[in-house]
Amino acid sequence: MDQEQKEYFMNEALKEAKLAFDAGEIPIGCVLVYKGKIIGRGHNLRQASQQAIDHAEILAISQANRQLASWRLAGCQLFVTLEPCPMCAGAILNARIDEVYYGAADLKAGVAGTLMNLLNDGRFNHQAYIEKGILEDKCLGILQTFFKQVRKEK
Amino acid sequence: MDQEQKEYFMNEALKEAKLAFDAGEIPIGCVLVYKGKIIGRGHNLRQASQQAIDHAEILAISQANRQLASWRLAGCQLFVTLEPCPMCAGAILNARIDEVYYGAADLKAGVAGTLMNLLNDGRFNHQAYIEKGILEDKCLGILQTFFKQVRKEK
Repeated sequence: MDQEQKEYFMNEALKEAKLAFDAGEIPIGCVLVYKGKIIGRGHNLRQASQQAIDHAEILAISQANRQLASWRLAGCQLFVTLEPCPMCAGAILNARIDEVYYGAADLKAGVAGTLMNLLNDGRFNHQAYIEKGILEDKCLGILQTFFKQVRKEK
Repeated sequence: MDQEQKEYFMNEALKEAKLAFDAGEIPIGCVLVYKGKIIGRGHNLRQASQQAIDHAEILAISQANRQLASWRLAGCQLFVTLEPCPMCAGAILNARIDEVYYGAADLKAGVAGTLMNLLNDGRFNHQAYIEKGILEDKCLGILQTFFKQVRKEK
């Protein structure tokens, strides 16, 4: 996949993040791509749904599983605006996703290179290729704008 | 919680594992307890649902979130027949579950003490108390019976 394509799909993940932002949720978005087409989309919904598991990646994976009628997402690329947390990294392993592209690093909970790297640990039965920093400024920017606004409202 | 109570709730998790067994799924079960009552139950459903995320713990957490109308499960105890994988350990952290009791260790993917310990890593914003080996023989036994049967059928 060339850089233009990567940025195209990360922009789609950013559209999802914007939907979260507009709903007052921490703005994180994700899309899942299979053979050049988006087959799963998701954005953080935790406050609206009050479901601890409703992170962008989990919702996108769940939709992609329905689309392919399979729990296996081999051959898929995942694009997410923020580095995955342990739950989402684990879901990526469980779904056998091959490639993970993320925008901003998560210094507090990121486990695709920041605090540790669960996606490249040979003890698990799957590993994923990781590329970080795709549209990093935009992905970080929407989060910073959100938290600035939250602090102002307090 | 005394040993008798712990075994009572692990037996309930085993009942869930049995439901998975009867459905031809890898037999793992989970219950979530709040103030002495079960508020979430789940068993592995991956083959039936073709959802990579449908592990016992995820389904029990999701049900408990609905029951309490909150993504926060502080004050809850989770009982699961097999040591959590990265996804489920991450969901336990995300839901702020305080106590985790498991039956059998998972030598291939267990991250509550076996391959690593995600539930006691001070870099994350939550840690959980862990106790392993509750009704271990029964929890391991149902898995061994299942895999013996699968091998026979092949």
